[in-house]
This record gives sequence, C-alpha cells and structure tokens, in this order.
Amino acid sequence: MGGVRTTERERVPKQDRSRATRQRLLEAAVACLAERGWAGSTVAVVAERAGVSRGAAQHHFRTREDLFTAAVEYVSEERSLALRALFPDGPADRRAVVAALVDLYTGPLFRAALHLWVAASDEEQLRPRVTELEARVGRETHRIAVELLGADESRPGVRETVQGLLDMARGLGLANLLTDDTARRERVVAQWAALLDDALG
Amino acid sequence: MGGVRTTERERVPKQDRSRATRQRLLEAAVACLAERGWAGSTVAVVAERAGVSRGAAQHHFRTREDLFTAAVEYVSEERSLALRALFPDGPADRRAVVAALVDLYTGPLFRAALHLWVAASDEEQLRPRVTELEARVGRETHRIAVELLGADESRPGVRETVQGLLDMARGLGLANLLTDDTARRERVVAQWAALLDDALG
Repeated sequence: MGGVRTTERERVPKQDRSRATRQRLLEAAVACLAERGWAGSTVAVVAERAGVSRGAAQHHFRTREDLFTAAVEYVSEERSLALRALFPDGPADRRAVVAALVDLYTGPLFRAALHLWVAASDEEQLRPRVTELEARVGRETHRIAVELLGADESRPGVRETVQGLLDMARGLGLANLLTDDTARRERVVAQWAALLDDALG
Repeated sequence: MGGVRTTERERVPKQDRSRATRQRLLEAAVACLAERGWAGSTVAVVAERAGVSRGAAQHHFRTREDLFTAAVEYVSEERSLALRALFPDGPADRRAVVAALVDLYTGPLFRAALHLWVAASDEEQLRPRVTELEARVGRETHRIAVELLGADESRPGVRETVQGLLDMARGLGLANLLTDDTARRERVVAQWAALLDDALG
C-alpha cells in the first residue's frame, strides 16, 4: 500500500508538470501567431517564448500544424468557458450577451485564428485541419449564443438570425484588425442588439 | 498643323499601351494575392503572370507595396462601378441589394484584400497604406449601400444598421474562405434582408 501511494505521489506531480508545460506552449503559440503571423510562427520560436526546450516542445507536438491548431482550439475552449461563466444563470440581457459574443472576435485569439485561417487558404497541409477546427469551434459558439440569447430555433428564421449575428461579430473582428474600432463597434452592436431583440421576440 | 497631328497619333496609342499594361499588372496582382497570399506575391511573379518585363513593371510601380495596394484599390473601384451598374435606377429591391452587397465579399477580390489586410497587421511598412485604403474603400461601399437601400441616415440608428450589414457581409466573406459556404450564406442573407427591410421601414 505504502509503495502504491509513493508511486502516485511521484506520478501526479509529473503529469501536472507535463500539463503545465503543454499549457504554456499553447498560450505562447497563440500569442506568437497573433503577433507574428503564420510565417513567423515556428515550434522553435514558441518553445523559446514558453521557456521550454525544443525537444520537450516536440514531445508534446510533433508538427508545427499540431501545435498551432491545438493552440487555437485550446484558447477557443477557454474563451467559451469564460463566456458561459459571465452568464452563470443562462439566458440573460440580450444586449449584454451580444456585446460579450462580439468580444470573442476582437482580441488576440481572433487575430491568431485569422492568421491560421488565411494561411490555411494557401497551404494544402493546413487547410483540412483548420477547416475542421473552425467548423467545431463555430458550432460550439453557435450553441452558446442560442442558449444565452434564449433563442428558440424551432421558429423559422431564428437559426439564421443567430448565424447572421455571429457573421457580423466576425466582420467586426476584421474591422478591428488594423485600427482600434471600439467606438464605432459599440454603436453598431447597440443597434444590432436592438434589432435582434425585436427579431427574437 | 500636320506635325502636331502626327505627334498626337503617336502619343495616344503609346498612352493606351501604357494604360493597358498597367491594368494587366493590377489584375495579375490581385489574382496573385488571392492565390498565393502576401508571402508569395512579388513584383517579379506578377510581371511574369501579366507577360510584362520586370523593368516595365517597375516603371509603373516602384515598390511591392505600391503595386499591391494600387491593385486592391483598382479592383475595388471596378467592383463598385459594377455594383452601381446592376441597379442603374438607384434604390432597388432590398433583398437584391443585400445579396449584391454580400457578393462583394465572396470573390477573389475579397480574398486578395484579406491577404493584404492580414499582412498589414504584421508589417509596419504596409500598415498605414492598407489602413488608409481600407477606410477609403469602406466609405465608398457604405455610400453605395445607403443609396441603393434607400436608407435615410438622418433617422437614428439607420447609419449603424447599414454599417452592421456591411460588417456581416465581411464576416460572411470570411466564412467562405476555406469552404463553399453558399447554401448557408443564402439562408442568412434572406433572413437578414427581411429584418433589415423592416428596420429601414
């Protein structure tokens, strides 16, 4: 019995260390992609930024594509959890929900995802993986939006109304890429949140 | 008098040739940017594609930045003219106008502009020029949208409604980058065109 406990004590901290290393790599990868784009983002650059040896980085992620798609997925999941945590009681004030949804597309994660997306449009090796990742993240965001907006998708047009809102959020993210578009964005979001509120009834 | 006429005859065809060369370079530059992205787009590649010598290309465009920003601007202007030509009598059926506006963001021009946009977010040399170009093209598209939708911007919220529509159109363009999103897009556009029609009164 004593022996088993010792083994567990040794194993658990090792798993924790490994998990912490993986997480540092994923966060460094997203930051790197957001700042330097795909062309400037390599496993070596990310390993250095995360303070991890290149060998350890390659133990966790065999290829550059593995690292960066895993990074965008990980941070997307974190953002989804944070979004749900903002509205712990489920359906909430629609203007607040629309503003929080749009916020998903204006930070470094969107910038990183956009770089990956655009790179995937030219690189055959990256394209199927990013397409699949994008579809998965998109479905999850749609699910959260429907839930928090209290939208009834059995009513005709409601599904498309929510989809159009998320398309607008992505477009607003794009408009924020080169300049700080905050002031204009807030006015557009206020107006469209009101239109959406009417449309969802 | 005879001498003057000869000079004019010689000068005009030369100007025409020069204009045609410039136009070929601009169109080749947009196609190149759409297919290969910024990293794969150089003056030499575009000159070869356009069947123009590198020297002639550099006579028209001194730098890579000159060529590609001029190309995106030129094609944007062509698209604006084509959009106005679709609705020669001004304000038209709003669903048709919304569909035509969204179409601006789903072709090779949008793909090219997106590559330039994303590259500009990382490259200090490109950034101010693309920011300025984007603002100019955005204002012109907004002007056309207001006109063709018959939108009265003196009414509160109307300006933001039209802006949000164009943001949605950009987001729909992004969603079409990696996969053919036509079927979903048509449903979203039909739904939001109806909502917009109600909102604009």
